[in-house]
Amino acid sequence: MTMHVDLLIRAGWIVPAQPRDVVYHDHCLAIARGRIVDILPVDEARRRCEAKIDLHLPDHVLIPGLVNAHTHAAMSLFRGLADDLPLMTWLQNHIWPAEATWVREEFVRQGTELAIAEMIRGGTTCFNDMYFFPQETALAASQAGMRATVGLIMIDFPTAWASGPDEYLSKGLELHERYRGDPLIRTAFAPHAPYTVSDEPLRRLNIYAEELDLPIHIHLHETASEVETALAQRGERPLKRLAALGLLSPRLLAVHMTQLEAQEIEQLAATGVHVLHCPESNLKLASGFCPVAELSRAGVNVALGTDGAASNNDLDMFGEMRTAALLAKAVSGDASAISAIDALRMATINGARALGLEHEIGSLEPGKSADVVAVDLGVLETRPVFHPASHLVYACGRHQVTDVWIAGKQVLRKGRLTTLDEAQLRAQADVWGARIVSTDRSQ
Amino acid sequence: MTMHVDLLIRAGWIVPAQPRDVVYHDHCLAIARGRIVDILPVDEARRRCEAKIDLHLPDHVLIPGLVNAHTHAAMSLFRGLADDLPLMTWLQNHIWPAEATWVREEFVRQGTELAIAEMIRGGTTCFNDMYFFPQETALAASQAGMRATVGLIMIDFPTAWASGPDEYLSKGLELHERYRGDPLIRTAFAPHAPYTVSDEPLRRLNIYAEELDLPIHIHLHETASEVETALAQRGERPLKRLAALGLLSPRLLAVHMTQLEAQEIEQLAATGVHVLHCPESNLKLASGFCPVAELSRAGVNVALGTDGAASNNDLDMFGEMRTAALLAKAVSGDASAISAIDALRMATINGARALGLEHEIGSLEPGKSADVVAVDLGVLETRPVFHPASHLVYACGRHQVTDVWIAGKQVLRKGRLTTLDEAQLRAQADVWGARIVSTDRSQ
Repeated sequence: MTMHVDLLIRAGWIVPAQPRDVVYHDHCLAIARGRIVDILPVDEARRRCEAKIDLHLPDHVLIPGLVNAHTHAAMSLFRGLADDLPLMTWLQNHIWPAEATWVREEFVRQGTELAIAEMIRGGTTCFNDMYFFPQETALAASQAGMRATVGLIMIDFPTAWASGPDEYLSKGLELHERYRGDPLIRTAFAPHAPYTVSDEPLRRLNIYAEELDLPIHIHLHETASEVETALAQRGERPLKRLAALGLLSPRLLAVHMTQLEAQEIEQLAATGVHVLHCPESNLKLASGFCPVAELSRAGVNVALGTDGAASNNDLDMFGEMRTAALLAKAVSGDASAISAIDALRMATINGARALGLEHEIGSLEPGKSADVVAVDLGVLETRPVFHPASHLVYACGRHQVTDVWIAGKQVLRKGRLTTLDEAQLRAQADVWGARIVSTDRSQ
Repeated sequence: MTMHVDLLIRAGWIVPAQPRDVVYHDHCLAIARGRIVDILPVDEARRRCEAKIDLHLPDHVLIPGLVNAHTHAAMSLFRGLADDLPLMTWLQNHIWPAEATWVREEFVRQGTELAIAEMIRGGTTCFNDMYFFPQETALAASQAGMRATVGLIMIDFPTAWASGPDEYLSKGLELHERYRGDPLIRTAFAPHAPYTVSDEPLRRLNIYAEELDLPIHIHLHETASEVETALAQRGERPLKRLAALGLLSPRLLAVHMTQLEAQEIEQLAATGVHVLHCPESNLKLASGFCPVAELSRAGVNVALGTDGAASNNDLDMFGEMRTAALLAKAVSGDASAISAIDALRMATINGARALGLEHEIGSLEPGKSADVVAVDLGVLETRPVFHPASHLVYACGRHQVTDVWIAGKQVLRKGRLTTLDEAQLRAQADVWGARIVSTDRSQ
């Protein structure tokens, strides 16, 4: 029986990320109505499929769209504003004043558009965000055809976005309601960190999170000083406090986690908490080393994020996969820890699992949404090809991404964005650059 | 008086690397007879210069050509052959058998050509190599218009290149003689490592090195096990042994150096030894962490290298600068350690200094050779631009390199190689790939 499909991509290699160690050579990926319907040998595809569009990419490898599990997307406008500074100097003298002056609706909208453009160009098809004015983040993603989990931010102190916990919560719930059932946009509660959110708001949002079945996305154990300060002020480590508040569950997405004791790793595994690992941000801010190999061995799901562009300074998941694999080996003292395919899974299926989307995205399997990335291995830097997964993680640059589909819709075609205007984004970015320079004290 | 120049490049920014913190905005770089003759404001250039070629690159930053201070260039043909393995499994089961089977003249020539193509495309204009059949390395570099310091390899055991220390030495000296006075190709002695070269050959090459004024390029203190084994077998750490042999001097280029005691750091500073830091190789092979911030503070010159593509897996000095800066912060626990400009200097002037070429290359200063790289900051991933050095190290990819000159000759023009044939290199690489696969046990 003939199978009618919208798009049939024949590729040199397909690395589906799941099943774990499978690599298809010279196979076809069939897409219909926004979903992957099959992965099949070329001969069989010729016999069985009738496709509206046939694409032949003999030098390319197809991979699942990358999931950037921790971003502050709008901060792309602050990229490179101030670097090489101790964390508190960087925050207090540069980032916080710049945020107080500039972060409004238009900033978040245009900064997020810039970030989405960068992410799509680099093969990222889904991001998990935390920032102010999340309705602008949601709108920017929705209009660009980008998949996002938008954080409903919560913090004790007032900002331009909300006056305090009550308003953060009510505005967040309103946004959640607005996107309920949306095919691309989801929401998550996003309390900033244990040291900026009190017990009462944490308890309240935890109740809502259970009721609405939403993830809780929080910075946790980012630095030794965070843990030491909590011990001095409250007599307990932040993870213990969250446990007492009932937050440890498969709903919790704990970002950074550079400070972990053996018993805490067991506790994370036992409660199903996900760790969102941001290796380059941790390095750049000298925050510490997340024990990724130990977490993985203990059965904790570790996903990968870039953090914001102000502390990375890019939204490059290829770079992040590479750094994650390299760093895990060095930190564990074991060159066989976190293989290339492990790193690719951290950037795909593990991210999907953390966001509760593992049945929808994160791997190239029949039935899943067609979030697909084509990476060109035809350039000199990746010839010859012995193992495509190795090249993806250890040798490729994100510029080798040529084509990207999200839910079957092509958002990058031969390196050009189809839903965003590059010239306009650049012009907007430069206008913001001039504004921000005018008020930054480092300039 | 009118200044007649061959090329005048007007660029958005010029980051000369020396003086250290200078950034020129909208200035012109003037090149004549292969040398930088001036860096001057646009108005002054208009008044004073008459140029054969005028180039206007308003979105670009000009930087000195990058110096890759440690390579095994020909190993690019083994890239991704085997990864994620403990060091000795990787060497004994994969790399050494593949080398024994395949490393001959043609392999080294074609592998080095592939490596040079990758390096030029990524802004590297000089590399310091160590491999067998160094005459092929020299020839490939010379024909491609690439600057290289070619290692005269020395190792106790026989290989296809030489039967033992006497022949390594005589063949090396012959090669040195052949390239004496060459404008691009230099030589250095390259004893592989303390654990593979005996005292006698080390003593002999040290005498020749003094006489001929050549650097000595050696792997040193790469892993803890190297140091432990030396202690067990000889009762002393390798650095101490080299000191006793009289090798510690500004002539010595010590690669890796992940195992260092405080007193050894002082000794390196006092004797003027250069450290060639290969952060990504050290991470990938779980070798340990080179204390870059401490070495720099002690006054040791630290240059940057990628190592071979089999253990990195790329020859990307942009990636290496980024990793070096990020890792140094994490290892020293200080976010202000190794700034962007420090990392750029490790990849330029510090490399030049290690190779004894600091009066010729490594910075954009009048009188120096015109080894120049133009990097396009006009893409979305690097807009807005607050500080070009920050973007170069923390946000740029090597694909943003568009034009490269070596000694005034353009070797990359708008992303295309002018001295090497990309299609031919790719075809050669794929032929080697098929051969190597046929004998590798992991396939």
